[in-house]
Amino acid sequence: MKKLTSKEAAELLLSYDNVAVLMHRSPDGDTIGCAYALCLALRKLGKKAQPFCSDKIPQKMYSYILDGFEDQTFDIEHVVSVDIADQQLFGDGLERFRDKVELCIDHHGSNTCFAKSGIIVPEAAACAEIVKCIIEDMGVEADSRIADAIFTGITTDTGCFKYVSVTPATMRIAADMIEKGANSGMINRIMFDTKSHARLEAERLALDSMKFYFDNRIAVVFVTKKMLEISGAEESDTEGIASIPRQVEGVLAGITIKEKDNGICRISLRTAENIDASRICTFFGGGGHKAAAGCSIEGTVEQAEAKIVKAAQSVIEESI
Amino acid sequence: MKKLTSKEAAELLLSYDNVAVLMHRSPDGDTIGCAYALCLALRKLGKKAQPFCSDKIPQKMYSYILDGFEDQTFDIEHVVSVDIADQQLFGDGLERFRDKVELCIDHHGSNTCFAKSGIIVPEAAACAEIVKCIIEDMGVEADSRIADAIFTGITTDTGCFKYVSVTPATMRIAADMIEKGANSGMINRIMFDTKSHARLEAERLALDSMKFYFDNRIAVVFVTKKMLEISGAEESDTEGIASIPRQVEGVLAGITIKEKDNGICRISLRTAENIDASRICTFFGGGGHKAAAGCSIEGTVEQAEAKIVKAAQSVIEESI
Repeated sequence: MKKLTSKEAAELLLSYDNVAVLMHRSPDGDTIGCAYALCLALRKLGKKAQPFCSDKIPQKMYSYILDGFEDQTFDIEHVVSVDIADQQLFGDGLERFRDKVELCIDHHGSNTCFAKSGIIVPEAAACAEIVKCIIEDMGVEADSRIADAIFTGITTDTGCFKYVSVTPATMRIAADMIEKGANSGMINRIMFDTKSHARLEAERLALDSMKFYFDNRIAVVFVTKKMLEISGAEESDTEGIASIPRQVEGVLAGITIKEKDNGICRISLRTAENIDASRICTFFGGGGHKAAAGCSIEGTVEQAEAKIVKAAQSVIEESI
Repeated sequence: MKKLTSKEAAELLLSYDNVAVLMHRSPDGDTIGCAYALCLALRKLGKKAQPFCSDKIPQKMYSYILDGFEDQTFDIEHVVSVDIADQQLFGDGLERFRDKVELCIDHHGSNTCFAKSGIIVPEAAACAEIVKCIIEDMGVEADSRIADAIFTGITTDTGCFKYVSVTPATMRIAADMIEKGANSGMINRIMFDTKSHARLEAERLALDSMKFYFDNRIAVVFVTKKMLEISGAEESDTEGIASIPRQVEGVLAGITIKEKDNGICRISLRTAENIDASRICTFFGGGGHKAAAGCSIEGTVEQAEAKIVKAAQSVIEESI
């Protein structure tokens, strides 16, 4: 893959027309914000551009981005991907674009360099930071819709500017977007301050299920099929739960065990200090980052619990 | 009160020595961050300066500010207040400073102008934004300790950059402080991602107590003396609870009822959209802002609940 600077990526995009912009499956605010911002910018230059995703964009959550955005149909000439580290993340609906991406814009250090050209900036807290620079380098001034989309990418990928990944550049780009009209208060309210009744109920049940091990250094919560049934919660309502057990003071490994079909349990692990979450999950064929990783374990929730707690304890014992 | 610009406030401070810097009672991150940042800056100029507060600064939470900060004793010549809107907020321990404040630095529009001179900037999301400018205007370059203190003020007063009060200036000042060495990831982790066991248990009990009224447009949670006893939580552990009921989708008025001694209930009200929380609380002799207000109601929690729900419903009915 040919590595590009922001200016070179901008020049390439300026030479394109009829552009498909790909998002990753299970789209989050960053991939959505990047795709819509880039398409809006390309359209401001008189080009045709359309975002594509295997999964449906949650209409209710992202209505301020989706409403008023007109779909364009055209014969696709160029394919760009945003916030996609690996072609595995295309999902079934984008299989037809495999090995066809010409420009890959991403901030994952683990990017598999599947495109012809790419700009990969692991220091960027959100891919939207890179897209913002490229848009500027194309000579497009962000309007309030572009600003909303970029701001969405940044705030969602940083947990509302909470994570250690946030840099001065992250804050300054967000400042620029608020200045260009991003409705930051409304966006943060939707993303971080609104819970459905089902989500609230699922979180309440998860909190009630919390168990502690190893002198309170390990906390486990459960999301069982029965709990989903009682709460009426869907998969997406349970996403925030993974961060709950690690928030407890003194907890070094926060484990969330989700009961899936076919006797499989999905484990989400969040760690503090120097505990390597990725290493713990590797024991079970999973992986991830140092502070956040995941894996799947066969068996009942009780069996999965025993296995993952034992693995977490052994890694903590080595590390402290 | 003589109104000053940042430059004028800086000049005044440059003419001072042996300065007492006052914080408000029940100190939060903004008043603490402002006081320590300003004292550190004055000390860098060779002056003596000491922060004062009626209440103890929570050592565990703010250890990164307090540790290594040496207390100075001297004959106080000048008194400055930070983030204090009204002398009522001095608390008993600072009564001796009443009517003695020469310079008041604040961001509350409701400031009672109790000082000889003052700089009041209601557009600042945190008082720490103003203090940062004054420190710069004094010609002091922020070191990492000053940066930590200023960042603390900004992030705590904006809910980690979540509130609608955040401006481009807020974000840019935070960016500068990260650049000067503020340990932003660690500070946000302590402030927004760490819960004591007691706090977790208190939140769990509060969630379990949640009740809905008026087609789910009003949500109520309770913090009773019994719940505090069961959870082992202290007053400070229950602060985050007030934001919980309003987070539920569709809720226009989120009410938290805390049972106090002497048959009094303390009400915290958070509202969404155009519902005026201050007006609802005025019925009971309380007040506050449009989206966040409080009041006290005599009686049992059930009696307080009936009264505040009725008042909230009548205001919502008028407003929708």
